[in-house]
Amino acid sequence: MINSAIKGMLTENQEKFLIPAAVVANVLESNNLYHAFLVLTKIKYAKIVVLNNDGKYRGLLSLPMITEQMFETESIDVEKLKSIKVADVMQTDAPTIADPYDVEQDLHLLTDQPFLPVVAENGDFTGIVTRRELFKAINHLVHDMDEEYDIISKDSKMITERE
Amino acid sequence: MINSAIKGMLTENQEKFLIPAAVVANVLESNNLYHAFLVLTKIKYAKIVVLNNDGKYRGLLSLPMITEQMFETESIDVEKLKSIKVADVMQTDAPTIADPYDVEQDLHLLTDQPFLPVVAENGDFTGIVTRRELFKAINHLVHDMDEEYDIISKDSKMITERE
Repeated sequence: MINSAIKGMLTENQEKFLIPAAVVANVLESNNLYHAFLVLTKIKYAKIVVLNNDGKYRGLLSLPMITEQMFETESIDVEKLKSIKVADVMQTDAPTIADPYDVEQDLHLLTDQPFLPVVAENGDFTGIVTRRELFKAINHLVHDMDEEYDIISKDSKMITERE
Repeated sequence: MINSAIKGMLTENQEKFLIPAAVVANVLESNNLYHAFLVLTKIKYAKIVVLNNDGKYRGLLSLPMITEQMFETESIDVEKLKSIKVADVMQTDAPTIADPYDVEQDLHLLTDQPFLPVVAENGDFTGIVTRRELFKAINHLVHDMDEEYDIISKDSKMITERE
């Protein structure tokens, strides 16, 4: 549980938590890795969302997941990527969320994930929640909380001051 | 400025903020990109620290910085990576910090960076501060602050409760 004052400040601009699907780059699970390699090199993201043809969320794909397929015993084979599908190597066990505005869940899961795919009940990919947007909310909280609240130690009953 | 109570809670376990250099993977600026490509594929990090032969911090290198060098007009050329040095393509303008325990600066810079290289005054690479460790401190703050402090609205003088 999060204290209601803290929760209120963290979620003041919560509409910014969701980066909508329309502006999030993706690849299709039916794409081959050669195509995905071009996309990930160009957009420079560490990880990208994988969808199916109906816009349903299927998993995540990173550049290392692709490049490790290129290694043969003695050489690196780029052509091999054309015969492997995104679905064959993508990560399918990454946590997803239904509600981008559940800040407690966001903070918990983003400890170990760079971003969280938001997936509707019917499987539709809605967008992502990133560490970046949560850091903005956190900076607001830690910088401005004592403008709106007195913060009093339960031991000393002293009001704390800005340093 | 951050309120002293908030700062105190965020920095309670601050010794964990610094991941020491000894356990952080790196490549040398004199390495060729073929070597760096193998390293980054194997460790699966999005970005890696670049050092010189004396252990001084020089920059950051990501897998897309390498793979974009492989693209020719009509094909992908892996062999080309053997003739390019890490120093030729690394990022040199990423922010670095001197003090890993300055939580205000950490929270500010980590909004836009996945991690912060810690660099001593003499240029020695000391380690990194990651978003992951700061998220742990933030989760402690938002979950436990009202066990140690009363948080009272300046308007209503009401003590807020856990939801």
